[in-house]
Order: sequence, then structure tokens, then C-alpha cells
Amino acid sequence: MYICIDFGGTNIRGALIDKNAKIHLRHRVKTEAFHGFDKVCDNLFELIDKLSQNVKLKAIGIGFPGTVSTDSVIVTAPNLGWNNVNLSKILKNKYNVEIKIDNDVNMAIRGENWIGAGKNYKNLFMLTVGTGVGGAFILNNTMFGGTDNNAGEIGHINVEKDGILCACGRKGCLEQYASASAMVNFVKEKLLNGEKSIIESNNYQHIEAKEIFDNARKGDKLCIQAVDRMCYYLSVGISSVVNLINPQCIIIGGGVSHAGLYFLERIKYYSEILCLDYSYKNLDIKLAKLGDEAGIFGCAYSFIE
Amino acid sequence: MYICIDFGGTNIRGALIDKNAKIHLRHRVKTEAFHGFDKVCDNLFELIDKLSQNVKLKAIGIGFPGTVSTDSVIVTAPNLGWNNVNLSKILKNKYNVEIKIDNDVNMAIRGENWIGAGKNYKNLFMLTVGTGVGGAFILNNTMFGGTDNNAGEIGHINVEKDGILCACGRKGCLEQYASASAMVNFVKEKLLNGEKSIIESNNYQHIEAKEIFDNARKGDKLCIQAVDRMCYYLSVGISSVVNLINPQCIIIGGGVSHAGLYFLERIKYYSEILCLDYSYKNLDIKLAKLGDEAGIFGCAYSFIE
Repeated sequence: MYICIDFGGTNIRGALIDKNAKIHLRHRVKTEAFHGFDKVCDNLFELIDKLSQNVKLKAIGIGFPGTVSTDSVIVTAPNLGWNNVNLSKILKNKYNVEIKIDNDVNMAIRGENWIGAGKNYKNLFMLTVGTGVGGAFILNNTMFGGTDNNAGEIGHINVEKDGILCACGRKGCLEQYASASAMVNFVKEKLLNGEKSIIESNNYQHIEAKEIFDNARKGDKLCIQAVDRMCYYLSVGISSVVNLINPQCIIIGGGVSHAGLYFLERIKYYSEILCLDYSYKNLDIKLAKLGDEAGIFGCAYSFIE
Repeated sequence: MYICIDFGGTNIRGALIDKNAKIHLRHRVKTEAFHGFDKVCDNLFELIDKLSQNVKLKAIGIGFPGTVSTDSVIVTAPNLGWNNVNLSKILKNKYNVEIKIDNDVNMAIRGENWIGAGKNYKNLFMLTVGTGVGGAFILNNTMFGGTDNNAGEIGHINVEKDGILCACGRKGCLEQYASASAMVNFVKEKLLNGEKSIIESNNYQHIEAKEIFDNARKGDKLCIQAVDRMCYYLSVGISSVVNLINPQCIIIGGGVSHAGLYFLERIKYYSEILCLDYSYKNLDIKLAKLGDEAGIFGCAYSFIE
């Protein structure tokens, strides 16, 4: 029995999962980062206590939205305003069980590899597309984090010389062209410049990625252009992964993956053009299967793999 | 004692190397691919016989200029006109010893990892810059070839949308911007368009990369621009590797690496701008140490690693 936690900016969700991937109990608490570090810890303790009250606690795994070092120290978590927090040590002192904290995408790929879209693959890359663009590798059946556990940062590979300024301080990062926010910004700008679309042009602030996908499926020219642009840039990133790492499988997760087959087919179209034939011929590109649950299953698998 | 062979388009060079990286004997033969497959094999047999005449033959390793499958079959070698050649089987039948054939850059990174610039690194990438641009990974202390042993193809990551047409059939591959040939072509075109340079503009056909580097060091504006352009694009490739894989070390080999520190400093300048800070801070970028010998040492190491 493992306590598996998905640590988000708004909620902390947890589950009690056994080694057969069966969920025995679920619970969630508010994160409340605005009340300070101690309050967040109290909320987390409450969640853990609730989940563990009827079982012998064995291990706690946490998927965290930020950079986590190889030894489970939270280096930086912009959403929470945390830097260099040794949450692992705090939990170890309090519960005295095995603790594993890792980046949320690293946990998600473990989950997909265990019981999801990435099952039975030895070398795979998971791409998450939402507000930002993230990624993670499993290579030779093991999580691969590189030297500082910072591998997989596909959102920051350079795709345009002197391109759009990114939050990371660099220009032309993939994330500025291929995230949901980037697609929305692209449409807003076009509407502001007078382009026609089914999307109401006086409703700029409320445009969402889902609406753009829905209207692209209906044949709206601007929305098709926006989806195509996103898929093209995602495929530039995917082809860099494929040409460099030659994986067996690319899994696409994150909010945008709910756009489904229409989205997947455009990705495949551009990826086939951009990837080396010899590396593409045995490649599977798939949508993630576990949705929001990938991370908590990954936490359990991190103790099993 | 291992027979270690660097299989080139013009020459096949071999050496007898022991497990302490000592070279006991060297020999070379002409490749003579234009005389057909059987002649090339005869030349190779002659080389092996010569090297093995006074020792008990244990294993033969070959670095090959082409795509080699995980089970040592030569999938394609454009310079030789070979496709799907099971040279490994031919040698196994004739000599009945362990045979390992791998891509030449894969063998070179093994050599550098064993006794060269990549010594003591666990995660490294080797970039070779010459007529083309190639690459190879060692991850977790082991050669990493991916699913089809085709990982490391940095020369074909996309760096310009609808860019220059590449021999691989795609447009905008790194190799078309960052190889020695690409740099020479860039200078030729500028001279044809009337740009001034120390390089004689009526001597187009004989411009070599070395001349461009030499004149850049002397302050020639066009040559500085050409070197900078090459280093920028190489750094785009390096930053993709660093942001995706987070290695400890990037080794730069191939003919262009002889341009030395001037070249290395420009690469570091652009790489620092393009790589994520957290992945760059512990990264070493170095020139290769073993030159033409990296491959033969790598052949020996492929049996030891």
C-alpha cells in the first residue's frame, strides 16, 4: 500500500494504491499556498493521516509541479513560490517511511508506463500540453532524469530564432508556440487584427483552447490555422526527440490531449514529415490514457519499478 | 587483445588494442568500394589477418560510416552504396570470434568515454562536426542507441521552418546550417553576392573551413559572421540535447573541432544563452581528445564496457 499524491497549485489529491494498481481510498485537500508554507504542510499532513488511518504506512510518493532534484528536494516551484524546500526530509521525520518526490510529469510517465498508454514500451517520451509544455523520458525501462533530474524540458527547446519571449527568459521556446495559451494568444491577436472566425471577436478574454479545437473541427479557417500551427510546432519538438533519442513511443497528455483524434492526426501528419524515416517507422504516437490519474499511479510505480 | 577497425570510405584502418588501451600493432588498407563488395571484403580480411597473425584472435570491433542495426547489420552506408549487409555474419563465419559493428560516432563516443575527453562522465553526448553533423549518447554509463540504434541524429533536427533542403529529403535540418560544408557554402554565396573578405573571391571552389576559421581569427568580417552562424546553429542543437537530456558533458569532435578554443568559446557563448540555466550550470562542453583514434579505442571499449 502506497500513499500517492498529486500536488497541485489549488488542490492536493491523494490515493491509497496497492502494487496491483488498485485504488483503495481517495482524499483531497486544498493547497492554500497563499496562507504560507506551514499551512500547506498542515493540509498535506491531514491528507496523509486520513489516507493512512487504517493501514500500515509503507511509502509516500508525491508528484510535484516544479523542479525536483535527484534526492527529492524541491528546487523551485513557481506556482507555490517555493525554492529549495526539503519536503522529503520533513515527511521522513514525521512519518519515518520511504519518501519519493519527483516532478509531476516524471510521475505521470511512470503511471502511463505501468498501466496506461505506455505499457510494454522500453523507451518512451511523454509530452504534456496545457498552459505550458512539459516532458519526461523512460529509457531502458527506467525513469531518466539526466544529471540534475531536469531532463525532458521540451517546452524550452528553441524553435524560432529571436522568437517570442518566454517566462524562462529565453526567446523562441517551443512553449511560446505550442501550448494551449500560445494557441489562444495566436487567435486573439488574429481577431484583433480583424480576421474573421466563428469565434466571437468581442469575447477575447474568454477564448479557450477547447473552443478553438471545436471550431476547427467545424471548418473555421482561423481555428484550423491555429490548431495546425500548434501541431506543427509540437511536431518540431517531437521530431527533435525522435531524431535524438529514437524512442518506441511518444505519449501526449495534458489538457490539450482531450482534443482527441483530430489533434493526434495533425501531430502525426507533421511528425512523419519532420522525423527521420528510419526512426519514425517503428514509432507509436498515442494519446495518454490515465488523464489526471497518471501521476498518482506513477507515485506507486516509482516504488515498484 | 581486440582487433579494432575504423571503416572509412577511402581507407580501412585497424589496430590491435589490449584492455589497458595500449596499441600493439597498426595497419591500414584501401577500401576500394568502387571495385565492388567482394574486393572490399578481401581488403578487410587482409587487414584482420595482418593484425591477428601473432595473437589469439578474441573479438573484432568495427566503427562504420552508416546506420547499423542493434544486431550489427549494416542497414545503409551511403558512401559505400551498401544496404542491409550482414557483414557481422560474414566475419563470424570466417573468424568465429565475437563481432561488434556499430556506427562510427557510437564507437567514437565510447573511445572518448574510455580514455578521452568524456572520461568519468556518466551521461554524455558527442557531437561530430565535419562534412555532416552527427552525434551519439552514452547514458547511465552505457551506449544509448534507442529503439533502432539510430539515436543521436542531431544533424537532422529541424532548425529552420521551410529551410534549406537536406540530403535526407527534409527541409531545415541542422546539418544544412552547422556543418563545415554549410559554412563554406554560406561564404561562397556571400562572395558571389559581392561581399568583401580576405578570402579571394575568385577562388570559390577551393575555400575550406580551416581558411574561414583562420581568417575569422584575423578579424575578417565575413568569416566571423560565417563562424558565428555555424556556432549559433550548433548551439541550437546542443541546447535541444541539454534541455531534453540534461547530460553532464558535451564533447565536440570531427574535423571542425581542430579549430580549437576560438570555436569552443563561440559555442559556449551561444549555448549558455540557449540552454536552461539549471541544466547548463553543471554542464561541461569540451573538445574531443582522441581525434581519428576515438573510433578504434571505442571498438575495444565496446567489448569491455
